[in-house]
Amino acid sequence: LANTIRIALDAMGGDHGPEVVVPAAALALKSHPHLRFRFFGDSARIAPLLTPALSAVSDIIHTDIAIASDEKPSQAVRKGKNSSMRLAIDDVDQGKADCVISAGNTGALMATAKLVLRMLPGIDRPAIATMLPSITGRTVTLDLGANLEVDANNLVEFAVLGVCFAQTALGIQKPTVGILNIGSEDTKGHEYLQDAAAQLEASTTFAGDFVGFVEGNDITGGGVDVVVTDGFTGNVALKTAEGVGKFIAKVLKEEFSRNIFSKLTYLVASGAMGRAKKRMDPRTYNGAMFLGLSKICIKSHGSADAFSFSRAIIVGANMVENKFNTLVGEQIEKMHAQQQAAAAARPEAVAG
Amino acid sequence: LANTIRIALDAMGGDHGPEVVVPAAALALKSHPHLRFRFFGDSARIAPLLTPALSAVSDIIHTDIAIASDEKPSQAVRKGKNSSMRLAIDDVDQGKADCVISAGNTGALMATAKLVLRMLPGIDRPAIATMLPSITGRTVTLDLGANLEVDANNLVEFAVLGVCFAQTALGIQKPTVGILNIGSEDTKGHEYLQDAAAQLEASTTFAGDFVGFVEGNDITGGGVDVVVTDGFTGNVALKTAEGVGKFIAKVLKEEFSRNIFSKLTYLVASGAMGRAKKRMDPRTYNGAMFLGLSKICIKSHGSADAFSFSRAIIVGANMVENKFNTLVGEQIEKMHAQQQAAAAARPEAVAG
Repeated sequence: LANTIRIALDAMGGDHGPEVVVPAAALALKSHPHLRFRFFGDSARIAPLLTPALSAVSDIIHTDIAIASDEKPSQAVRKGKNSSMRLAIDDVDQGKADCVISAGNTGALMATAKLVLRMLPGIDRPAIATMLPSITGRTVTLDLGANLEVDANNLVEFAVLGVCFAQTALGIQKPTVGILNIGSEDTKGHEYLQDAAAQLEASTTFAGDFVGFVEGNDITGGGVDVVVTDGFTGNVALKTAEGVGKFIAKVLKEEFSRNIFSKLTYLVASGAMGRAKKRMDPRTYNGAMFLGLSKICIKSHGSADAFSFSRAIIVGANMVENKFNTLVGEQIEKMHAQQQAAAAARPEAVAG
Repeated sequence: LANTIRIALDAMGGDHGPEVVVPAAALALKSHPHLRFRFFGDSARIAPLLTPALSAVSDIIHTDIAIASDEKPSQAVRKGKNSSMRLAIDDVDQGKADCVISAGNTGALMATAKLVLRMLPGIDRPAIATMLPSITGRTVTLDLGANLEVDANNLVEFAVLGVCFAQTALGIQKPTVGILNIGSEDTKGHEYLQDAAAQLEASTTFAGDFVGFVEGNDITGGGVDVVVTDGFTGNVALKTAEGVGKFIAKVLKEEFSRNIFSKLTYLVASGAMGRAKKRMDPRTYNGAMFLGLSKICIKSHGSADAFSFSRAIIVGANMVENKFNTLVGEQIEKMHAQQQAAAAARPEAVAG
C-alpha cells in the first residue's frame, strides 16, 4: 500500500517491555489498519504476544541487548550499538521505518537519536514537546528539557516546531502560540524573550497565530495551542502540573475514603468523577516528542500501559502521515528567507 | 502591653478596599487579641466599618490618594508619596508599626517597599515567598518574581530567608530545603544551581536541613518544606500550579452539572468534596511575603476576601512575634563568617 506507515518500536524499553509494547501496537492497528510494525528486542518474548492480525503486519528484529533505565546517556551511546533502542533508531535512519518510539531511558534516547538522526536542516537545537490537557482541549508545550538555556532564535524555531506539531498531530490549521513569561506585558521577562516575540510578531511567514506572552496558568487555561519556553522552565512547569494533579487526586481520594459514608458517596459520585478523570487522564496525552531531528522520534512514559503507549504510536503515525518534517522544513526556510531579506533591507546591512 | 503587635494596613488596596481590609482585621483580632491596627486610607469609608472591639485597638490615618492597580511601579514610587500604600510603608519604616500589609498593586508595593525599607543587612536581593498546600501540609516557595536572574549567593540567601520564614510563620524548627532543578541528580541543571547546592551542603551553620535538588512535583509532594528558585521559574511554577487547580475544579464542576442525576450526586458527595476543597483552599495560604527587607511587608491577593486577608495578617503577626528579621540577620551573619573562615583557610587565599 502506498500509504502504509512503518513504526519502529523499541520493544524492550519502559517498565514492562514487550508486554506493553506489543499489545499497544495491536490496539493502534485496530483504529489505524495502515500501520506496519518493526519490533526490536527479544523475539522469544515478542513473538508469543503477537495476535494473528498483528503478526501479519509485523517484523521482529531480534537482539538480546537492552539499555537499562539507569544507564548514563553517554554510556548508552558508546556501548549500546546493538541495543533494541539503537537498532530501532538506526532503522528509521536507514529509511526502513518512518518513525521510532521507545519507552526507554529518556537521556539515552535523546542522545542516541541526536547522534544518529542529526538535526533537521535549518533547525539549530531539538526540543522535547508534550501535550497537556486544557480546559478547551490540549496544549502543546516545548521545550521540556532538551535545552537548559536557549536564545531568541531557538525559541522562534521551537514556535515553528510546535505549530507544525499542532497542525500534523492535532489537526489545528492555524495554532495560537504564546511565549511563556511572568506577565503578559511587552516589557516583562528576559531580553531573549522580548527578541523572540519581536521576531514572531514581525514574521509574515509564520504559520501560527502569535498571541504574545502567556503565563503558567495559560498552559491549562485553554486559550493557547502552543506554549514555547526553555527546557528548564518547561520541565519545572510540566512536573509542577503533574504534581498538582497527583496532589488533588490524593486529597480527593483521602476525603472519599475517610469513613463508610464518604465511601458510599463516592460510589454515587463515581459517574461524574470518572468522566472528569477521563478528561484529564494523562495516559491520553502520553508521548514526549523529540522535535527538530531529521526523523520522527517519540518517547513514551516508562510506566505507560498498552492504551497509553498506543496513543504515542498514533501521534507518531499522524506526524508521519501529515508530513511533519516536510512542513517544518518549508516553514523554517520561508522564515529564514524573510529574515534575510529584512536584514538586507536594513541600512547597516547595506553599508556593511 | 509589651507584646502587642502593630499592623499597618493599606486599606485602599485590592479589589474591595476597606470593605475587605477592615473585616479582615476584625477577624484576625478575634484569634489574636494582642494585635493593634493602623488603617491608611479614606476614613469616611473605614470608620463606619470598625466594630467597637476593633475601634478600640485601631487608628485611622486618612488619605484621599490610592495607587491604582494598573499604575506603573516607577510612577507609583514618584507620584504616590501620600498614597495609602506609601504612608503604610513609611509607618513601618518609622517604627510606628511592626509590619505592613497591602492587597494593592504588586509592582508598586515591591518598588516602594524596597526604596523605603531597604535591604536587611547581609541580604543582597529580596525575594517573594508564598505557601502552597502540599500533601503533608504546606510548602514555602521563593523567589516568585522579584528576581528574573539570580546567582548562587542569592539562592543561598533565599534558602536562609525561606528557613526563617518556615520557622517563624509555620513553626517548623528545622525545615527541609531543596533547590528547584530538572532532576535530582547532582550533575543536572545550571551551574549556579550546583554552586548554591555545594554552599548549602558545606555550611555547618545553615539552620535548615538541605536535601539537595528537588523537582516541580515536589512543590506539592509534601517531602520538602522550602523550595528555592529564581523569580522567573518560581513565578511560572506558581501560576502553572494555580492553573492546574482551576482546570481540575472546572472539569469537576462541569461533570457534576452535566445533568440532573450528576447534580444530585454532587449533593451527596458534597461533604467529601467540601473537605477536599477546604484542604486545598488557596485562601488559607494567602500572602506573598517580601522577604529580605529591613521590615516585614506582605502582599495579599488583590481578590482576597476578609478570611483570606486575615490569614495574611496572622502570617505577618507570627513573623513579627517570632522575630523573623532578627533570625535572618543572625543566620546570615553566621553563614558569612563561616564562608570567610573557609575562604581564608584555602591555600590560594593564604598565598594571596
